Amino acid sequence: MTLDKSWFSEAVEATGTAFSLKGHKLHEEQTPYQKIEIWDTQTFGYLMTIDGCTMVSTRDNFLYHEMMSHVALNSHPDPQNVVIVGGGDCGTLSEVLKHAEVKSATQVEIDERVTRLSEKYFPELCTRNSDPRATLFFGDGIQWMKDAKPGSIDLIIIDSTDPVGPAEGLFGKRFYLDCIKALKPDGMLVQQSESPLLHLELIKEMHAAMRQAGFARTHLFHFPQTIYPSGWWSGSIATKSDAPLLERIDDRTVRGMETKFYNPRTHRGAFALPTYVEEALE
Amino acid sequence: MTLDKSWFSEAVEATGTAFSLKGHKLHEEQTPYQKIEIWDTQTFGYLMTIDGCTMVSTRDNFLYHEMMSHVALNSHPDPQNVVIVGGGDCGTLSEVLKHAEVKSATQVEIDERVTRLSEKYFPELCTRNSDPRATLFFGDGIQWMKDAKPGSIDLIIIDSTDPVGPAEGLFGKRFYLDCIKALKPDGMLVQQSESPLLHLELIKEMHAAMRQAGFARTHLFHFPQTIYPSGWWSGSIATKSDAPLLERIDDRTVRGMETKFYNPRTHRGAFALPTYVEEALE
Repeated sequence: MTLDKSWFSEAVEATGTAFSLKGHKLHEEQTPYQKIEIWDTQTFGYLMTIDGCTMVSTRDNFLYHEMMSHVALNSHPDPQNVVIVGGGDCGTLSEVLKHAEVKSATQVEIDERVTRLSEKYFPELCTRNSDPRATLFFGDGIQWMKDAKPGSIDLIIIDSTDPVGPAEGLFGKRFYLDCIKALKPDGMLVQQSESPLLHLELIKEMHAAMRQAGFARTHLFHFPQTIYPSGWWSGSIATKSDAPLLERIDDRTVRGMETKFYNPRTHRGAFALPTYVEEALE
Repeated sequence: MTLDKSWFSEAVEATGTAFSLKGHKLHEEQTPYQKIEIWDTQTFGYLMTIDGCTMVSTRDNFLYHEMMSHVALNSHPDPQNVVIVGGGDCGTLSEVLKHAEVKSATQVEIDERVTRLSEKYFPELCTRNSDPRATLFFGDGIQWMKDAKPGSIDLIIIDSTDPVGPAEGLFGKRFYLDCIKALKPDGMLVQQSESPLLHLELIKEMHAAMRQAGFARTHLFHFPQTIYPSGWWSGSIATKSDAPLLERIDDRTVRGMETKFYNPRTHRGAFALPTYVEEALE
């Protein structure tokens, strides 16, 4: 069958795949950085797209936001100072601030319009924006990281769009060098790293670039993310020190923290890699 | 954007989602049971669809076939006699026959044309069809199970289409009663059980029906399946006895058995359920 304009469709020529949600467009604007659309979908709530790519939906954003925050936070011994690069919808910030041990969380988003539209259409992701520990900075994450105080950050979360357009510079050795400088000795970085099926070469290149930049270890984890290409997504953790990842995930670390996908079992399960992925990353 | 006829699109009105693969149609036929199409896709190899729904692609079928076979086989103490209901593409049969402990594997597929087309377009799934332990029977799985010798089967794998049309009868108490009768005392059943995001109510109903029929325990596991709605799929195991599932998954059980997704880590990870799913099944 053919899909008409009553569907939002993200068709990716390079992967030969498309994902669509039935709905109608509520809003469209061209910012200095990108084109943002808001759709009211039939079954996924609101949908934000950037340059034609799905970014966040009301229904399934918990998968991505929980996994891009709690997995790394609970792999770090004491994440007090957290910086989010990108993440303008504030969903990751909101999850980070669920952790009492976090004393400061700074969101560095290049496009303020992403946040303003999220406040309107995804208010549930923005409820912690006025937390005294939160800072919302609008500007270039690459420059921000260059200027960051050396050895000041525990965890950098790179919650960006795909490695084309404004986010391209967030996926390379030069940026990783600035991250390493900004991190404390036991600091780490976590970055969204696309689909384990569709983008395995990219994942390999990312991990190689992280290690070339000086990160001691890299780790991949995976989780469902239904509105992204293939419905299957990954995050990559790079650690400055050679110590293995901690597992601060007894029941206590989730108790009192409301999550829908994340728990100690899914934390561990996310690191269980398919054999073909293990082999590719060897 | 709109998607034209250079894409195969599976649009599901009930879930408001669509998945598409770029390609062109090679073959189409109406059998007595269903409409089968074969597409040559740009990036996923061949694609078989039934009544407009994706069934199997060259590129990603390993996810489904490995997880629908090895998880249950390695949860059972000694699966010698295995019956597959559906599974006409022979991919599950092929995985089952990788296990040396399996002495007999019978595939009960209602539509012989599925198998004949698979032999032509997915020959890699059919390489074990002439294994002396394999029987390919073409007929109604519901009737077959009614007629099965009581207490004769170790593992029933229900590898069917969605619970509409010919497969509807495979998702209810009446069929499960016949399965229980056909199973040995330590026997089990595993069934594809749709998407943990889109079909949670169906999963709850399935597990309730399984227990109402007399199965002592039910278990859910999940895995990526990129061409199915949401890209995220599940299997459900029901055991006749009250014993917990075994984990016959030291390294030895995979050694010598070539798998791409499945290994002892992904086996365990598949049972790590999201919190909202745990709560729904409580």
